[in-house]
Amino acid sequence: MSAPVPDLPEPAHANVDSMLSRRFGKEVANYFSGSPLNRVSFLRPDHTFLSTALKHPSAKFLLFNKLEPLIKSPTELGYVTYNDVRSLIEGDPFMRTEEEIIKEYKSTTHIPQLIFLGLDESQEGFVYKNHYKGAPHFALDVTPQKTSTAAAEALIHSVESKGFSFSKARMQATLPPPEAAIFAEARHLLDWNARNPFCAQCGYPTLSVHGGFKRTCPPRDLADNVASPDRPPCATRTGVSNLCFPRTDPTVIMAVISADGKKLLLGRQKRWPPYWYSTLAGFLEPAESVEEAVRREVWEESGVHLGRVIIHSTQPWPYPANLMIGAIGQAIPGGEDIHLGHDAELEDAKWFTADEVREALRVGTSGLGEGPGPEYKEGGLRVPPKTAIANQLMASVVEGFLSGDAKM
Amino acid sequence: MSAPVPDLPEPAHANVDSMLSRRFGKEVANYFSGSPLNRVSFLRPDHTFLSTALKHPSAKFLLFNKLEPLIKSPTELGYVTYNDVRSLIEGDPFMRTEEEIIKEYKSTTHIPQLIFLGLDESQEGFVYKNHYKGAPHFALDVTPQKTSTAAAEALIHSVESKGFSFSKARMQATLPPPEAAIFAEARHLLDWNARNPFCAQCGYPTLSVHGGFKRTCPPRDLADNVASPDRPPCATRTGVSNLCFPRTDPTVIMAVISADGKKLLLGRQKRWPPYWYSTLAGFLEPAESVEEAVRREVWEESGVHLGRVIIHSTQPWPYPANLMIGAIGQAIPGGEDIHLGHDAELEDAKWFTADEVREALRVGTSGLGEGPGPEYKEGGLRVPPKTAIANQLMASVVEGFLSGDAKM
Ligand SMILES: [Zn+2]
Ligand SMILES: [Zn+2]
Repeated sequence: MSAPVPDLPEPAHANVDSMLSRRFGKEVANYFSGSPLNRVSFLRPDHTFLSTALKHPSAKFLLFNKLEPLIKSPTELGYVTYNDVRSLIEGDPFMRTEEEIIKEYKSTTHIPQLIFLGLDESQEGFVYKNHYKGAPHFALDVTPQKTSTAAAEALIHSVESKGFSFSKARMQATLPPPEAAIFAEARHLLDWNARNPFCAQCGYPTLSVHGGFKRTCPPRDLADNVASPDRPPCATRTGVSNLCFPRTDPTVIMAVISADGKKLLLGRQKRWPPYWYSTLAGFLEPAESVEEAVRREVWEESGVHLGRVIIHSTQPWPYPANLMIGAIGQAIPGGEDIHLGHDAELEDAKWFTADEVREALRVGTSGLGEGPGPEYKEGGLRVPPKTAIANQLMASVVEGFLSGDAKM
Repeated sequence: MSAPVPDLPEPAHANVDSMLSRRFGKEVANYFSGSPLNRVSFLRPDHTFLSTALKHPSAKFLLFNKLEPLIKSPTELGYVTYNDVRSLIEGDPFMRTEEEIIKEYKSTTHIPQLIFLGLDESQEGFVYKNHYKGAPHFALDVTPQKTSTAAAEALIHSVESKGFSFSKARMQATLPPPEAAIFAEARHLLDWNARNPFCAQCGYPTLSVHGGFKRTCPPRDLADNVASPDRPPCATRTGVSNLCFPRTDPTVIMAVISADGKKLLLGRQKRWPPYWYSTLAGFLEPAESVEEAVRREVWEESGVHLGRVIIHSTQPWPYPANLMIGAIGQAIPGGEDIHLGHDAELEDAKWFTADEVREALRVGTSGLGEGPGPEYKEGGLRVPPKTAIANQLMASVVEGFLSGDAKM
């Protein structure tokens, strides 16, 4: 049985009446977007701001153990307070300026990864410079490792004894959307930091700065086991390098309409349950536009030739670092023959009628590991749930996207 | 004086008549997109394919020295043949399987970076498996370094003596668009390989595979200066890691319309020439939708509050690795006050009338380092050239995007 899918809220402000909304309809809200936090990204280098936010009584900390989030229940994240984490983070990692921290860098000291996620402006609390308000939200990696093993284990024991647990399940359907968006930001950044402990330019260990949104390659390392504290030059120090900033991988995902506008192309992978199909998808490649990537991926995976492509809506996807760019494309006349022989990605690709897809959206939606709804009949088409952008793209097409009843 | 801007062609197939093109108008073609190459990405692991393509007489090689491309003139790339590069690449780097190459990996041997860009299907030549046809295009890094210094210097000397040169100028306006797209793919991939010689997960040197589209962290290194050939375990070897694949950074760039639909918000940076303004832009952050990133960036840089956001078109931008996602957003009533105090990015942001922007698009376009056209009058608004997506976004708005004369 499919888990109850929370309603996707309209994005704040997005649907204030405007000429754009009158022409294109309401903005589609995809799951994992719609964060209530103001990231105030320009305040991240300001250690006084971070330090004050950290210790404010309204501050909330979301803990992760090996990228598994602390939860109260599958529908609720488990936040803790500054007092709970104080010992693991040794008081206040934002006490000194970044400059000072870089100067005293010692690669052998393990500093638990802490991320400043943003201010929840709907909650009372913190005010900075009379202008930036809300409850500060942080994420903290409590995976026991190296010099902080004992403190991390103590913290884990303490929260588990309160009835919280670290969730092994993917949080991709059960959390209320605003919480899912906070979780997504935290998971994406913790994963990026954990995946990049070394500088890809020079091979030396790096240091987290900017509240977890930047990694820098320090020019000196005061660790005892290092031959000389001075390191060789690194290009990331002399110019701006994208290596220092979090990575997000653009991915294209597309509803493909037949030339006559009546059918929809869906595909399936071998490991999916029987009758389960979805929209085609793939990574955008270097120096491609989204429109080109959509046409290339559809041809490579299905042999179908696309003409016009429109971008529909987008979805963050934190497993581990994707931006799903949803598109709608139409096959050119004579370009609809399916050929699976180019890329071995799909087990099958097939044209479905709008009625088949409409029925599947009504009775056959579920996550990959779940069963379909009670009205589903064996043999009917099964498709992804509402929390997947694939579902939103299919719905848009069968609800009249082509005829002008825009929903994008 | 502005350089003559080449006409941007319509993308192949994109404007075959379709319901989508009738509803949304023709697809906007942005500079650096519209590559004539079929990347046949699924053939990259096939060393027999790469080896045959490499040595086929129709194969063309685009050389780069410190990321500067070889050109015949500012409007023409300088390709060379297999015979020209043969000595530098030591015959055929695709002779062995990837498995064998990884097994014999020796980090002290410098292998000049070679990229398989794709097949130009409009040119006669190569046929593979009776299905994949065209002239193979490769990019090659000839920067003299380590064990290949002498061979690289000889090759550079030889091509320069033929009258070719390596261009120090940014190739962002002068090449015909299909050549610009080939250049963009080559530059993006060479930059990514050069920027990532080490594994960010474990700190050890990595090896280029998949025709330059993947870097792998070999489990053994046969170099003489290495204590033991066996390396410690690395997570990139046991699962799929995005670290092994090229990085593309999604960037949002947006035409912002006032609530009444009559004005356009533009901003300027301090280092730009006087009167020169452009659309606001910034990097998408982890776990943001494009629509959210647009609203956040506009608020951070200008204080303006946006409602509905529509994605317009996209542009690859190989300096070094961006995907520009062009959007159009509308301010909410009462949200139009400009406040530059959040982020220090812009020197100024201002509302311009549609007439002012229309006039600037007619007489005031140019690259940042160039003068405006002859009809431009001192004090009038100056804006980016047609090869920038910013220009396409402004043009779309003043040509009637809001009233339904869609161009997106
Ligand atoms: Zn470095
Ligand atoms: Zn590694």
